[in-house]
Amino acid sequence: MSSVELVTTGSELLSGRTVNTHAQTLAEKLRPFGLKLVRDTTVSDDLTAIAEAVRGALSRVDLVFVSGGLGGTSDDITREALAQIVGGQLVLYPEALASLEQRYAKMGRPVTDVARRQVLILERSEGLLNPVGIAPGMMIQVPSALVGGTSRSREREQELPPTNPKTLFVLPGPPREFVGVLETGVLPRLGKLGLPVCQALENLWECTGLGETEIAERLEKIGLPTPEIEVGYCAAMGQIEVRLAAAPEHAALLAEKTAAVRAALGAAIYAETRIGLEEAVGRLLATQKKTVAVAESCTGGLIGHRLTTVAGSSAYFLGGVICYSNESKVRDLAVPRELIERHGAVSEEVARAMAEGVRARFGSDCGVAVTGIAGPDGGTAAKPVGTVWIAVADAAGTAARLRCFPTTREHVKLWSSQQALDLLRRRLQGGAPDTPRAPGLPGW
Amino acid sequence: MSSVELVTTGSELLSGRTVNTHAQTLAEKLRPFGLKLVRDTTVSDDLTAIAEAVRGALSRVDLVFVSGGLGGTSDDITREALAQIVGGQLVLYPEALASLEQRYAKMGRPVTDVARRQVLILERSEGLLNPVGIAPGMMIQVPSALVGGTSRSREREQELPPTNPKTLFVLPGPPREFVGVLETGVLPRLGKLGLPVCQALENLWECTGLGETEIAERLEKIGLPTPEIEVGYCAAMGQIEVRLAAAPEHAALLAEKTAAVRAALGAAIYAETRIGLEEAVGRLLATQKKTVAVAESCTGGLIGHRLTTVAGSSAYFLGGVICYSNESKVRDLAVPRELIERHGAVSEEVARAMAEGVRARFGSDCGVAVTGIAGPDGGTAAKPVGTVWIAVADAAGTAARLRCFPTTREHVKLWSSQQALDLLRRRLQGGAPDTPRAPGLPGW
Repeated sequence: MSSVELVTTGSELLSGRTVNTHAQTLAEKLRPFGLKLVRDTTVSDDLTAIAEAVRGALSRVDLVFVSGGLGGTSDDITREALAQIVGGQLVLYPEALASLEQRYAKMGRPVTDVARRQVLILERSEGLLNPVGIAPGMMIQVPSALVGGTSRSREREQELPPTNPKTLFVLPGPPREFVGVLETGVLPRLGKLGLPVCQALENLWECTGLGETEIAERLEKIGLPTPEIEVGYCAAMGQIEVRLAAAPEHAALLAEKTAAVRAALGAAIYAETRIGLEEAVGRLLATQKKTVAVAESCTGGLIGHRLTTVAGSSAYFLGGVICYSNESKVRDLAVPRELIERHGAVSEEVARAMAEGVRARFGSDCGVAVTGIAGPDGGTAAKPVGTVWIAVADAAGTAARLRCFPTTREHVKLWSSQQALDLLRRRLQGGAPDTPRAPGLPGW
Repeated sequence: MSSVELVTTGSELLSGRTVNTHAQTLAEKLRPFGLKLVRDTTVSDDLTAIAEAVRGALSRVDLVFVSGGLGGTSDDITREALAQIVGGQLVLYPEALASLEQRYAKMGRPVTDVARRQVLILERSEGLLNPVGIAPGMMIQVPSALVGGTSRSREREQELPPTNPKTLFVLPGPPREFVGVLETGVLPRLGKLGLPVCQALENLWECTGLGETEIAERLEKIGLPTPEIEVGYCAAMGQIEVRLAAAPEHAALLAEKTAAVRAALGAAIYAETRIGLEEAVGRLLATQKKTVAVAESCTGGLIGHRLTTVAGSSAYFLGGVICYSNESKVRDLAVPRELIERHGAVSEEVARAMAEGVRARFGSDCGVAVTGIAGPDGGTAAKPVGTVWIAVADAAGTAARLRCFPTTREHVKLWSSQQALDLLRRRLQGGAPDTPRAPGLPGW
């Protein structure tokens, strides 16, 4: 696989304000072309830092992406930084200017200088129209001779045969525009660059219910990794991705180990493609032609939100009740008031009644309920912050699960939604036994 | 302000699977110490790449953070990469080992080699206990002489007086553990490093309802930026942050321009601190002692989820109905069936009835409703994907807002929730007029 680097510009990405999603997007889009992102350097809106980072990237790899700093405001200086490397003037890009003028005319507004600055490109570049915004991207062929910015890179160039020229793609920073220009301007041009393509074989498993160490130990027992097969892990809240990768010549060994991984991880695997639990659950519901409704207390709507991020979810998701008060649990879900008084709102009894109540109200095949203590207040010795009761009601009865994961409010909510979707998944799979664990233990 | 760099390790951050949040977290935590993150270099789990990136960072700044690769699995190689730079062996960190053994004993599991590998530290480091996980962090004093990995950095060292030694903090990769070690191990040690601290003055505004270009034009009219005052922008979905920053000696000019910005942006400003719209709305509700309930169709629970991410939201958020089907709108919100039949589920009439219906059911002061077409299917010529009707009902009556933002399902949902929270905010502020815009225009 050819290596690619990304230079992300933008002080907001280093100020604590914004999470940088470009590396993720780019890697995903480049993968099918056999291109591997090996480094992302994020620098602030500083002319020298941007130029230095781009020079460094060009000295290491043949294909470099730069994002951000193409707007019209005073902190948008990427064009000027690149002009320091490749030289030449900034010129108006006529097609982008025309589209800008059209857009402003529709809104009945005059085209100002701030707006016009956005459609400047380097004269030595090819402009890439922005399908969802104003600022166009650029493709620049950079002669290797211009890239020797550091003595280190000059050494490397002497060692390696120079690939001439190198290619620089420049993309706007707002995520929608980054993706837009990437899809319409960059991807169609990639094939013509003549980069060596060698797609590694990869299998992956999305798992929930096992910790990373537990999974690594199970994989060690089946002899993974091997010198030929690379193992990768990625842990998120309540979820682990396991990947095996190998060169095409080791396909047979990879197939053998793939079967062994499936057996070793069993019911913890919820998907073999890169989808979230909400999509895995959605596929089960769609296949089984079942419907679901949710009763959400501490998750506040997050489970409904996650289920409805999946296109077509209206086929199986009927809706739900966000019962953030005891009144709502009684009125909207027919939870007997004495259950709440006797056991508390966060209890197995109330969770079961909520799941059954929402199933009855919506006439759905499955009812999912969550009631817990998200914190930071409201915890007690017996029921600390992070205590969550989850229940799923269906035609076969009602299952309940107690979990405790003492952490921040945000994580308790996210993790509770994960646990609830997982219990629903296991029920739909007619699946693996699910033993409640005591509070205080790690949350898996 | 002293400059700081971060080197983030982890192939998963470059594979398209995971979004890197460490830069954001680190910048936020370091800001009060007058430390500014100027670069984040993300590299894959490759010994040479990690060592080279850390050497590069140490050659540019005096304080470097490294994250990730401290687990016990085969792709965790950060310790080995750092040993290449500072030398020395890996040794077991006794306190972390004791805590690990305790933890495993509680779970009734033996301590395996995979687990034990996590508590190795460099012998030339000080271990930083991990309050929420197993792998400890490290603090390493690196003699400047060891950092001259590139001739470039040697040149720089000759130019500048060497600050000896440089400091390297190494933190685990999982976000909770990164924050945990940062807070308990790193921050308490920062004051003792003797770094020059000079906190710039900064004012910021969180805005919604105006685009970035529109804001930049208004700021140009009041003479911003100036040579003394830096202006920064950060655009997210339906939201723009505007920042003014200046050195302490320009406090008077900053105050003058701050007043001018407030006047220029007016009701578009929803906060002057870095909070989300859900928190701004929550503060208004809490101050005015009002309650709210939500009726969510296309947002699927996202508004409830956002409102309940705010600690203490149970004081004003009563709950809501996720009415993802027409049946639910009629049954749970008393929307007249003939309204849906005559005008369609996505219409002003139905949005108003939903807001009034949820307000009546929950007995809340305010009712918020959203009904729209999230896509990718379901759009028509008259109501394309992205068409959303929003309504807020309160004691003064019911306001409705039509918006159209044709984009992805995820963004339509996010942006609709933003529009709904903003309409609620403007109602609570007794505020600015809010003119519906026609479909087809940009979504602001």
